[in-house]
Amino acid sequence: MKIAGIIAEYNPFHTGHAYHIQKTRELTGADYIVVVMSGDFVQRGAPALYSKHLRTRMALLGGADLVFELPATHACESAEFFAQSAVGLLDGLGCVDVLSFGSESGDIEPFLQLGAFLATETPEYQNLLKKYLKKGESFPKARSLALQELLSDTDTDTGTFLQTPNNILGVEYCKALCRRNSPIRPFTVKREGNAYHEESLKEQFPSASAIRALWKSADCKMSDSTVSSCFPPAISALLSQTFSCPQFLDEEDFSPYLRWLLFSTDKAQLASYQDVTPDFVQRLFHTRGSYESWGQYAALLKTRELTYSRICRMLMHCLLQISDVPPLSYARLLGFRRQASPVLSALKKHSSIPFITKAADASSLLSDESAAVFAKNVEVSNLYESVWCEKYHTPFVHEYQKPLIILP
Amino acid sequence: MKIAGIIAEYNPFHTGHAYHIQKTRELTGADYIVVVMSGDFVQRGAPALYSKHLRTRMALLGGADLVFELPATHACESAEFFAQSAVGLLDGLGCVDVLSFGSESGDIEPFLQLGAFLATETPEYQNLLKKYLKKGESFPKARSLALQELLSDTDTDTGTFLQTPNNILGVEYCKALCRRNSPIRPFTVKREGNAYHEESLKEQFPSASAIRALWKSADCKMSDSTVSSCFPPAISALLSQTFSCPQFLDEEDFSPYLRWLLFSTDKAQLASYQDVTPDFVQRLFHTRGSYESWGQYAALLKTRELTYSRICRMLMHCLLQISDVPPLSYARLLGFRRQASPVLSALKKHSSIPFITKAADASSLLSDESAAVFAKNVEVSNLYESVWCEKYHTPFVHEYQKPLIILP
Repeated sequence: MKIAGIIAEYNPFHTGHAYHIQKTRELTGADYIVVVMSGDFVQRGAPALYSKHLRTRMALLGGADLVFELPATHACESAEFFAQSAVGLLDGLGCVDVLSFGSESGDIEPFLQLGAFLATETPEYQNLLKKYLKKGESFPKARSLALQELLSDTDTDTGTFLQTPNNILGVEYCKALCRRNSPIRPFTVKREGNAYHEESLKEQFPSASAIRALWKSADCKMSDSTVSSCFPPAISALLSQTFSCPQFLDEEDFSPYLRWLLFSTDKAQLASYQDVTPDFVQRLFHTRGSYESWGQYAALLKTRELTYSRICRMLMHCLLQISDVPPLSYARLLGFRRQASPVLSALKKHSSIPFITKAADASSLLSDESAAVFAKNVEVSNLYESVWCEKYHTPFVHEYQKPLIILP
Repeated sequence: MKIAGIIAEYNPFHTGHAYHIQKTRELTGADYIVVVMSGDFVQRGAPALYSKHLRTRMALLGGADLVFELPATHACESAEFFAQSAVGLLDGLGCVDVLSFGSESGDIEPFLQLGAFLATETPEYQNLLKKYLKKGESFPKARSLALQELLSDTDTDTGTFLQTPNNILGVEYCKALCRRNSPIRPFTVKREGNAYHEESLKEQFPSASAIRALWKSADCKMSDSTVSSCFPPAISALLSQTFSCPQFLDEEDFSPYLRWLLFSTDKAQLASYQDVTPDFVQRLFHTRGSYESWGQYAALLKTRELTYSRICRMLMHCLLQISDVPPLSYARLLGFRRQASPVLSALKKHSSIPFITKAADASSLLSDESAAVFAKNVEVSNLYESVWCEKYHTPFVHEYQKPLIILP
């Protein structure tokens, strides 16, 4: 039995993701696809368009066999920690053979090389990185410059290579595997269609960004052919049965809460949240009078050193009251296909981390530290749900009452 | 120089309030009218329709000479503590001769009698009160029953008398004056027009409730004659210059924040807020899944023992993070008429509490304890402002930047 792992956000799941799963099966010979998917909040410091439960259903309809949650406390993080947590989860399952990710080139070599290099972080590299950070470059830019300087004699143009979010993540996956001495073998599928940030839908495959842009256009209907062409037919059917026009959450739905937070929380409290520095809090207090909305405010806070995403993550940490969290040390299953039950048996045998199928059982299965992380994420999911309920006037369903998604 | 004090909410100021001021001048011979007015949050546990700054302008246009703030930490309280704080402020000014309030009867005697009786709280009364509270009556009802039993041989029908909010407040004012041994003499003006809770506008004078109901009707325009008939002409002109249709805040504008609070705050934190019991917090956690809106939820929480207003105050304390506060021991001036400058001179001479005209100066004028109360109220006013800005897309103005209102 061969199992391939995929780390994803599926925000939302589209035909490009289905292609990736299908190619992974074909090219790695995997019998099963296990996905680690961001929960209700995603890496760029934003709420997911849909709850993790609906996105799990979409992923299973789109070809995945099992979906595990990368919870908000670990998903809404820099690429490095996002990858470290997700790879840790896959590795902890104890039966995953391959980690498959998409890339522009489809060539695994530069990922392996850069991953191995960064896994050790030579003093030479660390000094160069510090030099560029001191010059006021953002972390991604400083890293790219340091690597360019160090690796100028290799085949890969490191500067260009590390400019796409997908490549950055791929390198981080390889680095994390390397650091863990994991037996999981990295593998990459050449991406087809739109680039990551492409906002039009002109290509064979859409990008999640393009779909998010489509959702926000005023006259979009779920029954439109442009919409249905973005999704595998089963997902398209699910979405148009569920919604007549696009319903979703984005960071703007959290705008009022962020404003409220800025005027109701003191400096010490804000500075206690993950990745938030006292300097940043100082800036929040200086600028909060100019707050209009999430996006406007995050853009206003942007500097050369602080990327827009990093700011969104910091703001989200404040809003969700996320303080420093220990490494992820459990695997919460969100859903699976019945046909994948052999994987569940293998997991029960080989998994080195507790494996949770029912939220309400978590506290009895986990150490106190992990139970606290789990409880925090239940709270965060309840907040997501509460904002959805506020926006669409739906009844609130507590995270404990959300069932495991099981498809035939 | 004779000075009359009035304790009010002016939410909003209407012709009935103007009548009360005018009659107070006539009947007490007062040269000046000093008002202690609720700030941005009012006694029934709700935001004021308009900011304290706009309501100060309305009060000055309506006949008041000086307006002091009863801050949210002391206004959003039971009638007893509301009255105690407001009377304390008037008493602390050191130059107020009369406290004038409206009543149905216009007869001061029953107020004096009940006020004096309650000021001492005989063991007999306390036992009766406890008996009715144990039976599960709300505090107002239990008090009314205890008094009826004790005072059955007097002329006043205490049960009926203490059923109107205005009478309850009048008695509390007299009780507070009595307890402080204050030289301020209570005085009552017979109310004309609508009863306190009357929601129609049929009488000579409207009620604030009727105006709030009018504001919420969909097709109300500020230029309507029904609207202008509610206000003295100068106020009517101010409102229609400022808004074309009614703009205001009410508790429903705080609905999303309350929902967010219910899902983001732990039990211990909630129970730390003023007047909030662990039992009540337990009920919040049991019922929060049924939350739809502020009003729906407060109604759902209502029991025989807990009045709707008490619940709204508890919820507001949670939302505004108001913990136990010390007695009010400063007087913040919100605005005055230039003609009233002799009162300002008298205040400087006689006031026994610090007297603040500029918010930013407060910390240097106040004890640490009072400065903390003041700072808390600045924060609360910023929250009010932030919700107004969110609703009407206006630029945020920090409480420190709001000027003292000075009219000719």
